[in-house]
Amino acid sequence: MPQLRLALAQVNACVGDLSGNAELVVDWTRKAVEAGAHLVVFPEMALTGYPVEDLALRESFADASRRALDALAVDLADRGLGDIAVFVGYLDRDERGARNAAAVLHGGAVVARQHKHHLPNYGVFDERRYFTPGDSLDVVRLHGLEIGLVICEDLWQDGGPIAALGAAGVDLVVSPNASPYERKKDDARLPLVARRAVEAGAPLAYVNLVGGQDELVFDGDTMVVTATGELITRAPQFVEQLTVLDLDLPGGAARADGLVGDFTVHRRTLSADPLPSYEPLPVPPSAEPLSDEAEVWHALVVGLRDYVHKNGFRSVTLGLSGGIDSAVVASLSVDALGAGNVYGVSMPSVYSSDHSKSDAYEMARRTGLDYQVQPIADMVEVFVSQLGLTGLAEENVQARCRGVTLMGLSNQHGHLVLATGNKTELAVGYSTIYGDAVGGFAPIKDVLKTLVWDLAKWRNAQAEKLGELPPIPENSITKPPSAELRPGQVDTDSLPDYELLDAVLDDYVEGDKGYQDLLAAGFAPELVDRVLRMVDRAEYKRRQYPPGTKISLKAFGRDRRLPITNGWREG
Amino acid sequence: MPQLRLALAQVNACVGDLSGNAELVVDWTRKAVEAGAHLVVFPEMALTGYPVEDLALRESFADASRRALDALAVDLADRGLGDIAVFVGYLDRDERGARNAAAVLHGGAVVARQHKHHLPNYGVFDERRYFTPGDSLDVVRLHGLEIGLVICEDLWQDGGPIAALGAAGVDLVVSPNASPYERKKDDARLPLVARRAVEAGAPLAYVNLVGGQDELVFDGDTMVVTATGELITRAPQFVEQLTVLDLDLPGGAARADGLVGDFTVHRRTLSADPLPSYEPLPVPPSAEPLSDEAEVWHALVVGLRDYVHKNGFRSVTLGLSGGIDSAVVASLSVDALGAGNVYGVSMPSVYSSDHSKSDAYEMARRTGLDYQVQPIADMVEVFVSQLGLTGLAEENVQARCRGVTLMGLSNQHGHLVLATGNKTELAVGYSTIYGDAVGGFAPIKDVLKTLVWDLAKWRNAQAEKLGELPPIPENSITKPPSAELRPGQVDTDSLPDYELLDAVLDDYVEGDKGYQDLLAAGFAPELVDRVLRMVDRAEYKRRQYPPGTKISLKAFGRDRRLPITNGWREG
Repeated sequence: MPQLRLALAQVNACVGDLSGNAELVVDWTRKAVEAGAHLVVFPEMALTGYPVEDLALRESFADASRRALDALAVDLADRGLGDIAVFVGYLDRDERGARNAAAVLHGGAVVARQHKHHLPNYGVFDERRYFTPGDSLDVVRLHGLEIGLVICEDLWQDGGPIAALGAAGVDLVVSPNASPYERKKDDARLPLVARRAVEAGAPLAYVNLVGGQDELVFDGDTMVVTATGELITRAPQFVEQLTVLDLDLPGGAARADGLVGDFTVHRRTLSADPLPSYEPLPVPPSAEPLSDEAEVWHALVVGLRDYVHKNGFRSVTLGLSGGIDSAVVASLSVDALGAGNVYGVSMPSVYSSDHSKSDAYEMARRTGLDYQVQPIADMVEVFVSQLGLTGLAEENVQARCRGVTLMGLSNQHGHLVLATGNKTELAVGYSTIYGDAVGGFAPIKDVLKTLVWDLAKWRNAQAEKLGELPPIPENSITKPPSAELRPGQVDTDSLPDYELLDAVLDDYVEGDKGYQDLLAAGFAPELVDRVLRMVDRAEYKRRQYPPGTKISLKAFGRDRRLPITNGWREG
Repeated sequence: MPQLRLALAQVNACVGDLSGNAELVVDWTRKAVEAGAHLVVFPEMALTGYPVEDLALRESFADASRRALDALAVDLADRGLGDIAVFVGYLDRDERGARNAAAVLHGGAVVARQHKHHLPNYGVFDERRYFTPGDSLDVVRLHGLEIGLVICEDLWQDGGPIAALGAAGVDLVVSPNASPYERKKDDARLPLVARRAVEAGAPLAYVNLVGGQDELVFDGDTMVVTATGELITRAPQFVEQLTVLDLDLPGGAARADGLVGDFTVHRRTLSADPLPSYEPLPVPPSAEPLSDEAEVWHALVVGLRDYVHKNGFRSVTLGLSGGIDSAVVASLSVDALGAGNVYGVSMPSVYSSDHSKSDAYEMARRTGLDYQVQPIADMVEVFVSQLGLTGLAEENVQARCRGVTLMGLSNQHGHLVLATGNKTELAVGYSTIYGDAVGGFAPIKDVLKTLVWDLAKWRNAQAEKLGELPPIPENSITKPPSAELRPGQVDTDSLPDYELLDAVLDDYVEGDKGYQDLLAAGFAPELVDRVLRMVDRAEYKRRQYPPGTKISLKAFGRDRRLPITNGWREG
């Protein structure tokens, strides 16, 4: 049976960095060639990064992407990498508009181009804003084998391009993707990929980006399945990885070209003759699946690290309150950037408990992050007495003096400020705008409070497994949460119990359920009323909140777009 | 010739407020009936407000919209308003998804429904995210006359539903719209409406919303043209208005139904017999067109007023620096809310000039707004000395102490804080995040600096024309702009001349031009390099900036969606 050695490059591209991404393609193509591969597949829009957002509309950028692609083809050949077929996603533009495209580079030239057909326009995706859909399928013949191509969303459509490829006949389907992480999404991918392989009647190689881009993080999860839908191998999530795999393919699949279903199938021959048979490599083992907490933790670490580094920062600073949120953000930061690049600041007020200071110190001691104490009493006193502030105004001024302190240290020393708020707080508006909401990035913005605790416990347990000191002080996990903005304050003064609150938020925010559905789910009417009012009224705060990594089905931000001015009240 | 009296209700609906909007429809329908009208047309999605954003995806809201429509039909009849045909936009939902729809209410029932066909998905619009397009056209026969309906974007399409209505035959076309204001857009509307009337072979009545919704403001500009495209009457912009007009219509236009072009045409008879002839009303005079500055000023006043009131505030507070930006925002606030609801705060630092204080005071004296002085020296001193801040960090802490002061006064007294930054500053990042960028709303966020000056001069000249005291101190207009964050600082230390800077921004931000285009436009390479770097690097600040009224072709916000993490540099 004809053979083919496939390389799948699960890489971390940077949006807009055409020359950096082209270099990435060269580097990983060289690795593929060194491994003896005959073709290498890069993710969707690997040359431009994903998503490029409104850069797609700028002609100068689309032209630069096309030029970079042409130059890349030449460059690969110049470096002796012209024999391998390189499948790479890029931004195309023609007389009908911008295109989400993938090209095949071979022998120093762009030998095939294909445009994405199905353009997602839901959730975080706005592809109908940017791209004109394609209507052709470019099948390339490599060493006598027919290789079809489908881009990301095209894979998720019943009866879409895959069905046409199945009817036309292909020996292999490769699929470049830029599929952002969300919890449990990986559980959906394998069955989907398997179903499509069966539909295509050919093995299917799925390649996904890794790395963070603003609020999105891509988890990789590259995989290959057989023509009958069985998993052959699966790459680990959240790391760059080259998967190299030998396939025996029956060959002779071509049955039709021209118009097949709604698509025009073009076939292009790169090399007509099958390879002489060779000794295959052992099948790379599939990565162990990660637990839910492990997966989320990795997503948050990668999202944070890439935001910091891709934006030209090396270090971060954050307020350490001794509470669970700042402890988890500090621990993520240490994992992402190293303790030497994390600057924790304890900013006690007159209402701060002793344990808030000792727990913050203990966090620093356990992880080795840089630690300083900046009491805010003097600053607060000037504002409160000069402006005559009382009650909530006095509480908020404390949070804001902390914000000004962190920003001052950031300006003076060049650290990126991290906001430590969680999704529950952001949902109900339990945060002070320009106070604890200050920051360039908010690592746990999409993590509900109950999950923050679970992550802390998981991270400590991981450390224990590895014989390391658990990073998060036990007391930060077990004590009742408090904002400590007035004497004896605890969160439950203002908020329902977090278990209950998060359950309502899960249904209302992620599930988009209405009032009657929430009652039917068993929540008390007073609770539903109270929570929904809080959520609806906090929209203005969310608009000014820093970006943070999406991990849930529906994150605040581009995923959930609600008006601030909004007279609608469920009930 | 058969007659018909048409009423066009240019109203200010509030997003999400179904009961309030239903009441609005009843009130204006009553006015239409009192004026003897036979049909009344409300804007696109008048029952829900526009845009409802992700509320469109929430089933409970779509169901409530449908129920509110049914109840409205009954309610109108119960109040003796069942004889008039009421065309009203609403959110529909059926088995194929959510719909941007308009219904005809008559005799206590919903007698026709039509779905929007062309769904805009560019600029500020995301309608492909929300709605399923329609494929039918509902023509109603009222007093023997055939009345066709097209919703907003359907009007902007060549060969769209209007062509089908022309082929099917109608006596009149009515068009509900939610078309946001931008400069010069009204110049495009009349020729478009005229062309479509000719295409339909019938007079066309265009009805648009007025009022502010977050970053959008709707300007009305309701108009009627003849079958040959001549303007009959045009309503004033930015105010609620009922236009009542008698038309003589030839009748007998119906030529086809069933499938016409791509659309299925349904005809529904409300009343088959022509009206007995009656004495027509005089044609209402067309509103005088506004000058560019007047139009922008009205847009900003309405956008601000509606944001404040629709979000439950009565009063605003802002920093008065003596400079042009805060003077213009103060003047807009006084026009929008009355001087008694505007609280100006002068917050001098050790670097503040004498004229900054005297000009701020003069602004208050001229307009009668509430004025107080809160020096920030003591607050700044604590931060600077405790944290050891120098240079930019020291400059920023001054702006941030002002931000904390305004927020403290807001929390204590319940005023909404206004940010006074202009589009030029926001573009190049010449503002302090959590400092002067603090606020719930930013009225001149989409106004370039040079236009800020023009508006100030226009507003003063208007006052002089009316024999009133010009609100803005002459010195605030003429003095060189300065942030006054260090001794002797002026804006031109850090920025190019504003005329030049705004010209580049106009091409780069609004025009989306690339580097080569900018050079071709005659800008010096160093200038282009410098400005583009500043704009690209300030994206993170813009994401956390308050909302403000869009007046330009491309505003920051949903109109221009760029990644923060972005390796692309023009050049």
